[in-house]
Amino acid sequence: MSKSLSLEPYKGTRDFYPEDQFIQNYIFSTWKKAVQKFGYLEYNASILEETELYTSKSGAEIVNEQTYTFIDRGGREVTIRPEMTPTVARMVASKRRELTFPLRWFSIPNLFRYERPQRGRLREHWQLNVDMFGVEGAASDAEVISVAYNIMKSFGAEDSQFVIRISSRKFMNFLMRQHFGLSEEISGTLSKLVDRKDKTEVSVFESQVKELLKDKTESFLSTLEIKNIKDFPEGLSQHESTLELSALFEVLRDQGITNVVFDPTIVRGFDYYTGVVFELHDTGSENNRALFGGGRYDDLVSIFNVEKVSGIGFGMGDVTIHDFLETYALLPVYVSTTQVYIAPFDETTFSASSELAAFLRAQGINTAVDLTDRKIAGKVKTADREKTPWLIVVGQDEITSGKFKLKNLAESMEYEVTQDQIITTLKKSAHT
Amino acid sequence: MSKSLSLEPYKGTRDFYPEDQFIQNYIFSTWKKAVQKFGYLEYNASILEETELYTSKSGAEIVNEQTYTFIDRGGREVTIRPEMTPTVARMVASKRRELTFPLRWFSIPNLFRYERPQRGRLREHWQLNVDMFGVEGAASDAEVISVAYNIMKSFGAEDSQFVIRISSRKFMNFLMRQHFGLSEEISGTLSKLVDRKDKTEVSVFESQVKELLKDKTESFLSTLEIKNIKDFPEGLSQHESTLELSALFEVLRDQGITNVVFDPTIVRGFDYYTGVVFELHDTGSENNRALFGGGRYDDLVSIFNVEKVSGIGFGMGDVTIHDFLETYALLPVYVSTTQVYIAPFDETTFSASSELAAFLRAQGINTAVDLTDRKIAGKVKTADREKTPWLIVVGQDEITSGKFKLKNLAESMEYEVTQDQIITTLKKSAHT
Repeated sequence: MSKSLSLEPYKGTRDFYPEDQFIQNYIFSTWKKAVQKFGYLEYNASILEETELYTSKSGAEIVNEQTYTFIDRGGREVTIRPEMTPTVARMVASKRRELTFPLRWFSIPNLFRYERPQRGRLREHWQLNVDMFGVEGAASDAEVISVAYNIMKSFGAEDSQFVIRISSRKFMNFLMRQHFGLSEEISGTLSKLVDRKDKTEVSVFESQVKELLKDKTESFLSTLEIKNIKDFPEGLSQHESTLELSALFEVLRDQGITNVVFDPTIVRGFDYYTGVVFELHDTGSENNRALFGGGRYDDLVSIFNVEKVSGIGFGMGDVTIHDFLETYALLPVYVSTTQVYIAPFDETTFSASSELAAFLRAQGINTAVDLTDRKIAGKVKTADREKTPWLIVVGQDEITSGKFKLKNLAESMEYEVTQDQIITTLKKSAHT
Repeated sequence: MSKSLSLEPYKGTRDFYPEDQFIQNYIFSTWKKAVQKFGYLEYNASILEETELYTSKSGAEIVNEQTYTFIDRGGREVTIRPEMTPTVARMVASKRRELTFPLRWFSIPNLFRYERPQRGRLREHWQLNVDMFGVEGAASDAEVISVAYNIMKSFGAEDSQFVIRISSRKFMNFLMRQHFGLSEEISGTLSKLVDRKDKTEVSVFESQVKELLKDKTESFLSTLEIKNIKDFPEGLSQHESTLELSALFEVLRDQGITNVVFDPTIVRGFDYYTGVVFELHDTGSENNRALFGGGRYDDLVSIFNVEKVSGIGFGMGDVTIHDFLETYALLPVYVSTTQVYIAPFDETTFSASSELAAFLRAQGINTAVDLTDRKIAGKVKTADREKTPWLIVVGQDEITSGKFKLKNLAESMEYEVTQDQIITTLKKSAHT
């Protein structure tokens, strides 16, 4: 017996009691249905990967400071996955000769980051990952963004409640290296500043940029303010990456997706992005984290020393979408998966109760039988508190007459019915 | 670029490509439906727990040699869960005042054991966990075993293909401590021998027992051979634990479950069991591992220094049930979740293809559009190899006429249909 044995989950993780799991299941099934509509197929993998998978291409900060990494008993360095993209790239690289491209894949893995828990950010979260491999061009970029948009609509979100911000790594590279003539090192530092712009005070941000760019500062800062690629100055407007962005916005407009903006401050933390990058944000003030984030990563599969396979995808976390749905009152009300609660009057009716339950289950009705020796009031209370919609008390009278009182607990309605009529009453009720 | 970057999953874990995940989803959904039929509600928790959760009550071997345990950056000793029971006991203890008992809960967690991978045994596996809290007695013992039985029936298994072996920790304690008068230490050692009986050569087992029991050996060994509690000698037949076992077998027989036997060699590895213990075995020779295992653990919640809450439950692994289903040809044939594959004739019909796809999705049809610039033959090949049942090629002719050729790839049938007729054709086909 240990006096100190903790009742809490490990720091930064959550317990999901049935009412919490109900919400998780709602989020997961909404994700799943929405992406399967677009033809994405589910895959999965282990939560443990060898550490080298992350050191080769993710941002260095992530592997060194933010992961759970340890040495296994066989001397291998392993990491609890902080993200799914390296894993899916590994899987694609591994079976690239057997797989038929283009691939549309999704998964809902749990991910671990070692960080201080805060609103919208825990040590463990689940994340929908949606990826397309083997296609390039505006149509595929647009589809992935359209999937993200349609997920939000499936949750009941209005266009006014969220905005999709789009930029391009290729464009930013061109802007910094060619247009402003910066070195690779300075470009890298500048990217990281821009990535944190939203979280940095304006004056601090501007002085940081000035330190790097000197007299080019004003020109650079004004470029960051452009929210429409049509407003690009000459020298930027005809570059390949700009034309790609134009084509993307055109396809999205064709599909009726209008809450999208160009935003050059979208960088995304990972080193592996090569083309379009995007984030989906709540337009309200309450949730300032990105709800989705993703981009094109055409060179990621090649880190396995195999031929190039282009890829584009995004991730969406359960914690942030939960906060969003809560803010906009879009979470569903809890309903028990158990439909009928049978309360035997006493132990002498256990066997008859069990037979009735078997009959209902065979008809597809989820049915629990109370097997305690409590008084009937206690059993009814359990059914009610567990939010089971229907209750049947089974006593000797019911067994003799073959007539049961089927009680709807939420509506306080009671029906006197035969076994068969229980089924018809429940089915009728499900349709109203 | 690293030359050695591995394409393999971490040792003892699996990648689930869409066709593998299809099987996982089949197993998980069969589990889920079967237990929800009995009123069990889903819960979940993090895969990481503080190590002390396992050191207090699990078998010592498990924590010391078989877990993934490490120190986090904050100096906490954490373990990747090797089993779910301590977690669910913690959750129940934590909210025992808010929860309404009896509880029926289930979860499908992934679990990690550090061991040499072999048939039916990997480092990571998923496991259905089914538990009932707050009820004691034959009816609840029987229900949990009945749930296990019904899961097997849901998978299409015949009664002749599996057997449920039942024993009781209480009975074995009585047998060893009182009936044979053994010390606690010798009883403990003997239990472990009995637990490994199936994996030990008969002569070795007998000599091991003889070393401990001396002249009581023969009498003890003959008790282990009893397969029916009616055959118990006087002195055993009237003990409380024997009567409990009799009551359990009677309830099971009432429910028509006849492939159950008493088997005193069933011990189960964990220290926390207090009453009935059981395992479900394949009757064939190919899969010698238990498909299910579980038992009653009435003192587990009390390790948190809270009032006693009785519990009974079992676990069933995905690897062993997969092997069983494969052996008896009970695995389903892969069907893609994508119903329609649209192949635009060329880039000029991308936009019309996308509109048709949006129309089908709005009607609930999962639809993928091929966005590559390949020739049409390549697109058709992808649809076919991905086992998408339906294909539509969209060219200028189709756009002009509003008539599409809807092709069933498996049956090589083609229908010339309007947009609306696509829906009716698909629905009709789903019903045949």
